[in-house]
Amino acid sequence: MAIERVVVVGGGVIGSLYAAHLARSAETWVLTRRAAHAEALASHGLRVSGKSDFTAPLHATTDEAALPDADLVILATKATDVDGAATRLAGRVPSATVMTIQNGLGAEELVRAHGERALVSAVTFMSGVRHSDAHVEYELDTETWLGPYAGTTTYERAREIERLLVASGLRARAFPDLRPAQWSKLIFNATVNTVAALTGLPHVSAFAAVAEPADLGRLVRDLMDEGKRVAAAAGVELHEDPWEMNVLAVRRGETEQAHGAYAHVPSMLEDVNARRHTEVDFITGALVREATRLGVPVPLHEAVYRLVRAKETSW
Amino acid sequence: MAIERVVVVGGGVIGSLYAAHLARSAETWVLTRRAAHAEALASHGLRVSGKSDFTAPLHATTDEAALPDADLVILATKATDVDGAATRLAGRVPSATVMTIQNGLGAEELVRAHGERALVSAVTFMSGVRHSDAHVEYELDTETWLGPYAGTTTYERAREIERLLVASGLRARAFPDLRPAQWSKLIFNATVNTVAALTGLPHVSAFAAVAEPADLGRLVRDLMDEGKRVAAAAGVELHEDPWEMNVLAVRRGETEQAHGAYAHVPSMLEDVNARRHTEVDFITGALVREATRLGVPVPLHEAVYRLVRAKETSW
Repeated sequence: MAIERVVVVGGGVIGSLYAAHLARSAETWVLTRRAAHAEALASHGLRVSGKSDFTAPLHATTDEAALPDADLVILATKATDVDGAATRLAGRVPSATVMTIQNGLGAEELVRAHGERALVSAVTFMSGVRHSDAHVEYELDTETWLGPYAGTTTYERAREIERLLVASGLRARAFPDLRPAQWSKLIFNATVNTVAALTGLPHVSAFAAVAEPADLGRLVRDLMDEGKRVAAAAGVELHEDPWEMNVLAVRRGETEQAHGAYAHVPSMLEDVNARRHTEVDFITGALVREATRLGVPVPLHEAVYRLVRAKETSW
Repeated sequence: MAIERVVVVGGGVIGSLYAAHLARSAETWVLTRRAAHAEALASHGLRVSGKSDFTAPLHATTDEAALPDADLVILATKATDVDGAATRLAGRVPSATVMTIQNGLGAEELVRAHGERALVSAVTFMSGVRHSDAHVEYELDTETWLGPYAGTTTYERAREIERLLVASGLRARAFPDLRPAQWSKLIFNATVNTVAALTGLPHVSAFAAVAEPADLGRLVRDLMDEGKRVAAAAGVELHEDPWEMNVLAVRRGETEQAHGAYAHVPSMLEDVNARRHTEVDFITGALVREATRLGVPVPLHEAVYRLVRAKETSW
């Protein structure tokens, strides 16, 4: 079943990157919260600079009742807004496969609580900067990984979405089972995001430094080791080793900084700097809950989880 | 040997509180770093408000060569400045017993590295606010605990200092062995200071909350349990249980806040808010080094130590 019409829910960095690219291959609608945002997109289209460079015309609305039926919904809100978005979509866009791209675990279940859906899980490491409602800069052009969720749809459907994303100029890879990739990212995120949020450091080389007892990389490695033990107990064989992902990301970051680019600021640190509620419940919280369910001790993840939660109450 | 002349090194909150009170019972000199500070003290005396209320005339200088010999030196610098202060004092004020009051462990050894001294260890939970060079407000009027250090002087000498402090209007208690009290404070400080520094929270009731899995008090309790295991391995029977100290301090704080007072801001959080180098190496760092020496695992203290150290590099 070809994908001819797409709805993207949420026009943050990631939603904007998906919407602008997809608008080149399919009729694309963006569901926003602010009327000014929808108007800017509908009148000017959405400009992408950086790794891509074009302006895409698309449809945008704040009114979910105005959405046509579609083949695909990309739920591109923060994890903290998934439940609200799923409420808005309940009973709407009925033919669509819904793709969740949130950090952590649990977004699919939140969507399903509002009605049966064909669900595709996805994770993305794309990043960018939102310059305005109608202009997003594409920085990190990494693959979106996706796969059918819990038997609600097929691997073939995930492959169709992969082809659409690639035809639109994005990088993507479908898996028959996303969990190995999802868990790799979960462990990476649960560690790097909380450590960044607590130290105020972007993802810099200190995250991989292990020479001295006081070095931060030792904590990062210990946190990832705890995460790997939980994955193993869950029967998940990881797609990538989170510690190697960390070391590679830090090295790549150093090269880019040598060329004048900024170090990557993990989203949880952005949230802390803006004194916003973070996604920690969906990331580290999800990992701790899985560990508890499986009987795996994760004292360090519990520690950083409690610290970030407490930090949120300090504002 | 009566104590007739005292030198206080450092005119921060704690140094000012000691100097002003002692000036009522002994000839008192303050060694400062800034000339304007010494001039203000010498011309106006030092005013104390709050729990005490008086102005004490005293001597002050920035020049250690101008100090007369004395019976007692109170080293009232931050732990990070002890080595510098000991360097300035090397060979000077030769008859004095030197009392260290720093947070953490190790100040006495830093002093001794600059020459043999009669040393008294002390810990204090006094707190206050420095309104100007010549005015300090006395808030928390808790006991100074003190005792002879490693056979360099006698319990009787510590008792003489206790009597002087009490005669000056301060609260004090001498112990034949300070380590039980010093370790109680070390474990309390290593935990409360780092947790405050990382969360941005003053010492509020969340530090004692343990009902929910995500509650911060569970981390506080786990950190203190690690510390208690180190003390036990060091052969130290604690003077007070740090967790009970924490619960009591939080309750007292709640009562005071109900009367409009502010919650206590631990010094490490003050340092973090001012983007200053913290005392973490002397507090949590000292505890971690002792744990390593004794072969006691302290993964949570290592975690918060690494996080605070990394935070210091983020500025």
